[in-house]
Amino acid sequence: MQTVKTQVAIIGAGPSGLLLGQLLAKAGIDNVIIERVSGEYILGRIRAGILEQGFVDLVREAGVNARMDAEGHVHDGFDIAYYGKRFRIDLNKLTGGSTVMCYGQTEITRDLMEARESSGLTTFYESSDVELHGVKDAPHVTFTQNGEKITVQCDFIAGCDGFHGVSRKTIPEEKRKEHERVYPFGWLGVLSDTPPVSDELIYCKTARGFALASMRSETRSRYYLQVPLTDKVENWSDELFWEELKKRLPEDAANRLVTGPSIEKSIAPLRSFVCEPMQWGNLFLVGDAAHIVPPTGAKGLNLAASDVSTLYKLLQKFYKDGDENAPTRYSEIALRRVWHGERFSWWMSNMLHDFDETNASGMDKATFDRFMQSELDFYLNYEEGQKVIARQYVGMPYEAIE
Amino acid sequence: MQTVKTQVAIIGAGPSGLLLGQLLAKAGIDNVIIERVSGEYILGRIRAGILEQGFVDLVREAGVNARMDAEGHVHDGFDIAYYGKRFRIDLNKLTGGSTVMCYGQTEITRDLMEARESSGLTTFYESSDVELHGVKDAPHVTFTQNGEKITVQCDFIAGCDGFHGVSRKTIPEEKRKEHERVYPFGWLGVLSDTPPVSDELIYCKTARGFALASMRSETRSRYYLQVPLTDKVENWSDELFWEELKKRLPEDAANRLVTGPSIEKSIAPLRSFVCEPMQWGNLFLVGDAAHIVPPTGAKGLNLAASDVSTLYKLLQKFYKDGDENAPTRYSEIALRRVWHGERFSWWMSNMLHDFDETNASGMDKATFDRFMQSELDFYLNYEEGQKVIARQYVGMPYEAIE
Repeated sequence: MQTVKTQVAIIGAGPSGLLLGQLLAKAGIDNVIIERVSGEYILGRIRAGILEQGFVDLVREAGVNARMDAEGHVHDGFDIAYYGKRFRIDLNKLTGGSTVMCYGQTEITRDLMEARESSGLTTFYESSDVELHGVKDAPHVTFTQNGEKITVQCDFIAGCDGFHGVSRKTIPEEKRKEHERVYPFGWLGVLSDTPPVSDELIYCKTARGFALASMRSETRSRYYLQVPLTDKVENWSDELFWEELKKRLPEDAANRLVTGPSIEKSIAPLRSFVCEPMQWGNLFLVGDAAHIVPPTGAKGLNLAASDVSTLYKLLQKFYKDGDENAPTRYSEIALRRVWHGERFSWWMSNMLHDFDETNASGMDKATFDRFMQSELDFYLNYEEGQKVIARQYVGMPYEAIE
Repeated sequence: MQTVKTQVAIIGAGPSGLLLGQLLAKAGIDNVIIERVSGEYILGRIRAGILEQGFVDLVREAGVNARMDAEGHVHDGFDIAYYGKRFRIDLNKLTGGSTVMCYGQTEITRDLMEARESSGLTTFYESSDVELHGVKDAPHVTFTQNGEKITVQCDFIAGCDGFHGVSRKTIPEEKRKEHERVYPFGWLGVLSDTPPVSDELIYCKTARGFALASMRSETRSRYYLQVPLTDKVENWSDELFWEELKKRLPEDAANRLVTGPSIEKSIAPLRSFVCEPMQWGNLFLVGDAAHIVPPTGAKGLNLAASDVSTLYKLLQKFYKDGDENAPTRYSEIALRRVWHGERFSWWMSNMLHDFDETNASGMDKATFDRFMQSELDFYLNYEEGQKVIARQYVGMPYEAIE
């Protein structure tokens, strides 16, 4: 039985937990991370890699930017192909200078892990039976590692342990509202060591369903196809996947497509989810623990980063400026930006996919489709509309915290 | 039994039919109007009065603008009150100079009727049993007036006879798709001879439901309250109406509210409706005959005007330039702009009303409400969003027809 004391206990060593830990440590705020699985397991996860400017700035503030700046690719824009017609969203021009950075989430996580290790900060990997206690008055976390019971006593707990983690469930059920929308389709993703068809992302709306052409690097591609939720990975040979992808890509991209064996292939459901509030006493929910977005628009990791930014600033106010009430503002501030990201991801998903939900919005499929076609028509053809997409894609500004 | 020959038979003497007739006549294209009711009856209808620039230009092109220019009020913007907070949409600034004109639909109709009378153009009022024949090859219209059977032989028929008219129903049912969305609430409207609370419109989203403060003139107000579809006018005394309106208006407007007896009071359902195609052989559907929008955003009459503009230009190409195929392009051109207006009206309605449709969009009410709050938050607080509202409110440009 071991007892550890710290200022902030962070549950989860994914990119949000690691980034928060690094930022707090740089600000002189002590923290430990408690993680259920191993570091290796975390680095094996396949995730998106489009980072908003705010995220990039935060990584720089944490001083973990060397490899990202060397190997990441700035994207000035992206394409939407709409029944074969290509529209470029020139982020740089439309927002007056903002861009996004393409750098894999796995890479960011690796950089943050290495930085944490060099800093000598404590991380408990492979911790089982993690439990949160006394979040209203005397916060502490208990868990078992290598057969030993460990207790972490702390001022605050940051729940960075994802959708299935224990943190959110620690908030009594009657004290939280969970907003949810499950989409009637999934994404079949393939990762392959082939050069991507384009330097930038192409979101494709087609009569055969949605497709996304994206990448991790100049030699590693990531492609997605909209599939029915009932579909199974076993139904999709590599050959079949490439064949269908070719039919959904714009012609010039299809002609450039280089195929190869898949490194990873999986079907993910699409979900919009928000838990309100994002805070309970001295427990703060960060990232996926509090909210999930469908991947259309690449907001998942970026929303986690803005939570990290908000919490980090509020904890600094508490520890540095002696503002005891600062942390109580977390949920309200974080949720405002979360809902913007949720709405944008929902909107992009509605517009770009082909799906049928009888009576959804009180309309039949044909009518809903016409509304969405007109939506795309307006937002892609008029500068006012393009600017709305661009502003949200590069990310809403982080709230200044006075 | 009388037979009349003309180039274009127009069904309906509402503002669209009259405006089309006037424009065609000015271009030397002969036309007659066949109307089911009397002119007096038409002028007794209460309708909206926010005219887009495109509509105003068209009225000027028809040469019927004298009174509109003298008595109409240019609105540089409008307000959206969002749980008490006021946001001004400065149309002039946000669109780089576009505005809307406040001039009652009844007044426009009166001006057009008088102009038609002075021009000596034929209008058959109080015509019963109107039937459209041979729209594919030998178009003609039959009806009865004062007991006499009359036949109008023509090249084309313009169906300007509204949602319940005969024109749309002349297109075989299997040849048209009717898109529809009926909203689970209505608008209770009151017209009164009192000075309006504001020079411009105020759209109010409140926890008690939507309200709209609008006007016909400096001494005549038009107010609306969102009510359940099951509500009845008899449940609303004038006193009760003013009391409820005060609770939904922003405080400063509520304090300025001048009340008085209602001249007219009614409950209207809200509907989105589009018939595709808008054309069948030599029959063209114009305005409400082909599409209905909820009144949020004031697009109804304005969409009719853009249909008139499109049809007028295409018929000119046919008669003046000998372009025989021009009229076949009507439906495609008209529908594109119609869908923009439908989508904008649907979006404004969704955002500003408070309503519950379990499972609408696969979400519960609380979740849908949050999406809509975030939508308003974005579109009202960021210039990119405001410009999208302003561009659509002043009206999408009319399609240039080459």
